[in-house]
Amino acid sequence: MLTVEEYRTEFLSYLNDFQSPSSPKNLYEPVSYILGLKGKRIRPILTLLTCDIFNDNYSEALDAALAVEVFHNFSLVHDDIMDEAHLRRGNQTVHKKWDLSTAILSGDVMLILAYQLFENYKGDTFVSLAKLFSKTAIEVCEGQQMDIDFSKKEDVSADDYLKMIEYKTAVLIGASMKMGAIVAGASIKDQNDIYEFGKNLGLAFQIQDDYLDTFGEEEKFGKKIGGDILENKKTLLFIRAKQLLSPDENDRLIKLYSSKSSNDDNKIKEVKGLFEKSNIPKILSSEIENFTNIAFKMLDGLQISEEKKDFLRDFGNSLMKRNI
Amino acid sequence: MLTVEEYRTEFLSYLNDFQSPSSPKNLYEPVSYILGLKGKRIRPILTLLTCDIFNDNYSEALDAALAVEVFHNFSLVHDDIMDEAHLRRGNQTVHKKWDLSTAILSGDVMLILAYQLFENYKGDTFVSLAKLFSKTAIEVCEGQQMDIDFSKKEDVSADDYLKMIEYKTAVLIGASMKMGAIVAGASIKDQNDIYEFGKNLGLAFQIQDDYLDTFGEEEKFGKKIGGDILENKKTLLFIRAKQLLSPDENDRLIKLYSSKSSNDDNKIKEVKGLFEKSNIPKILSSEIENFTNIAFKMLDGLQISEEKKDFLRDFGNSLMKRNI
Repeated sequence: MLTVEEYRTEFLSYLNDFQSPSSPKNLYEPVSYILGLKGKRIRPILTLLTCDIFNDNYSEALDAALAVEVFHNFSLVHDDIMDEAHLRRGNQTVHKKWDLSTAILSGDVMLILAYQLFENYKGDTFVSLAKLFSKTAIEVCEGQQMDIDFSKKEDVSADDYLKMIEYKTAVLIGASMKMGAIVAGASIKDQNDIYEFGKNLGLAFQIQDDYLDTFGEEEKFGKKIGGDILENKKTLLFIRAKQLLSPDENDRLIKLYSSKSSNDDNKIKEVKGLFEKSNIPKILSSEIENFTNIAFKMLDGLQISEEKKDFLRDFGNSLMKRNI
Repeated sequence: MLTVEEYRTEFLSYLNDFQSPSSPKNLYEPVSYILGLKGKRIRPILTLLTCDIFNDNYSEALDAALAVEVFHNFSLVHDDIMDEAHLRRGNQTVHKKWDLSTAILSGDVMLILAYQLFENYKGDTFVSLAKLFSKTAIEVCEGQQMDIDFSKKEDVSADDYLKMIEYKTAVLIGASMKMGAIVAGASIKDQNDIYEFGKNLGLAFQIQDDYLDTFGEEEKFGKKIGGDILENKKTLLFIRAKQLLSPDENDRLIKLYSSKSSNDDNKIKEVKGLFEKSNIPKILSSEIENFTNIAFKMLDGLQISEEKKDFLRDFGNSLMKRNI
C-alpha cells in the first residue's frame, strides 16, 4: 500500500498525461480546465487504494480512477449551470468563463470520455465497470433532480433527504471503491461489501459536511460558516429541528427561512440557536457516528488481511476528521 | 425483410413499452415527452433492417435501435437549448416546456439510459456496441461544436463544412446500421462497409436537406423554404457560391448575410438569385449524387444476396426522394 498522499501524486501524474483530443478547441479546452482545477481527488484515490487492498496492483486501476474523476467533473460542470454558480474551487465556472453552450457540450463529452476510459479493460471487466458506472451515473442524476425538487418543496422528510444525499454523493464514493475491487478481481461479495463501506462513509461525510457548514470552524472547514442557512437549504439539521421545536419556534424557523440574503449574521445566529435548542449537534453527531459504524462493520467480512482493514479504518477516520 | 412501414410499427410498439423509471417525475417526464413526439424514426429503422439484412433477426436489434433513438433525442434536447429553439416537431422544446435545469439533466440521463440499453446484449456484443456508441457520440458532440464555431466564423471551407455534417449527422446514420450488423453477427468487413454506406448516404441526405431548404417545394419539404438564408447559415450552397461569384457579387452576398430578419422575402429571392448565378443547383446536385454513388458502391462487396442489396438500394433511393 502507498500513503494517501502517494496515491494522489500517482493519480495527478496520470491525469496530467491524459490527453483529450485538442480539436475542436472550444469543446476540449474546458475539459482540461475543469480537470486541472485543484481538488482533493478523493474518488480516484479511493479507486486506486481499493485496487491495492484486493490485489496490490493499483496502477491497473488508473483508467477507472480517471473515469471516476472525469465523471465527477462532468457533474460539477452541469450542476454549476443549474445552481447558477460563478465560482468552483475559487475559479470561474465553465459556463461563466465560456458560455452556456460550451458548458453543456463539454460536460456531455466528458460523460462519454468517462465511458471510453473503460475500453482499456478487457471483456468482462469492461462490462462490469460500464454497468456499475451507468447505474451510478443515473442515480447521481436522480439525486441532483431530488435536490432541485426539494429546494422548491415545503416539506421534505428525513428519509427523502437521506435518499437524496445517498444518490447525489454517496453512491459515487461506493462505486469508486467497487471499481477498484472489480479491476483487482475481488469476489462479488467483497465488491459489494466495499461498495457499502464507501456508500455509508459517503453518507456520514455528507451529513458531517452539512453539520460543519453550521457548527464548524471556518479555518478548518475551509468555507464560510452559515452558508446553508443563508441559502435556506433544507439540510438534515433543518429537517430534524422542525420535528423537535415547539409550534412557535417552528413558525420562527420557517419565517427565517423564507427570505434570502447573502450576508445576515443575525439570521445565522438565530437559526443556530434554534438548532441548538432542538439538540441538533448531539442528534446529528449520533447519525454521523451511526453511518460511520455501518461502514466499518462492512469491513468485518472482507477477505483481506487485518492490516488492510486497519488501513481502511484509518482512512475512514482521517476522512471524517477532515485530514485528507 | 419487412417493409419500412412495418419496421417503424415494430419499433414504435417497442418504444411504447419502454418504461424509463417514473421517479423523480421531473427527471423522467421530459424523457417520455421528447421520445413520444412524432418523428420519422429513420435511425432505429435502419438498425432493425440492417440486422435483418445480415441475419433475419431484427427483433434482437430492438434494444440497440432504442439506444440509437434515445441518444438522438438526448442530442435534440441539448441542441435545442444551445440553439434557443422554442419548437421541436411542432411542440414546445423541453427547456421551454420545463426549464433549463430539467432539459440539461433529462438529456444527461437519456445519454446514460442509451448505454444501459446495451446491457441487454452479452459480453462481446455489449463491448462492440458500447465502443461504437462512445466513438459516435463523441463525434456528434464535436460536430455540434464545429457547427457553433462556424456560425461565429467568417470563412468556413467546404472541407470543414463536410466534416461538420459528417460528424453532426452522418456518423450516427452509419452507426445505426453498423449496430444492426453487430447484433446480427456480421463480419467486420460487412460491418464497416454498411457503416460507410450509411455514413455516405447520410452526407448525401444532409447536403440535399440544405439544398431543399433553398430550392425545394414547401409542401414536399415540410418546412418553410429559405429558412437557412434568413438565419445566414453558412451551408455548402453559401460556401460554394462564395468561391464562384465575382468580387462584387460576393460583397453583395456577404452584405445580405450580415443582417438577420425572420421574414424577408426579398433577401431570400436575391440570395437565391446569386446561388443560381453561380450554378449552385447543378453543383450541389452533382455532390449529392457523388455521395449517393459512394454509398451504393459500398454494397458491392457485402456478403448478402442480390435481393437484399436491391432492398438497400431501394431504401436509399426512397430516402433521397423523401418518400420515407
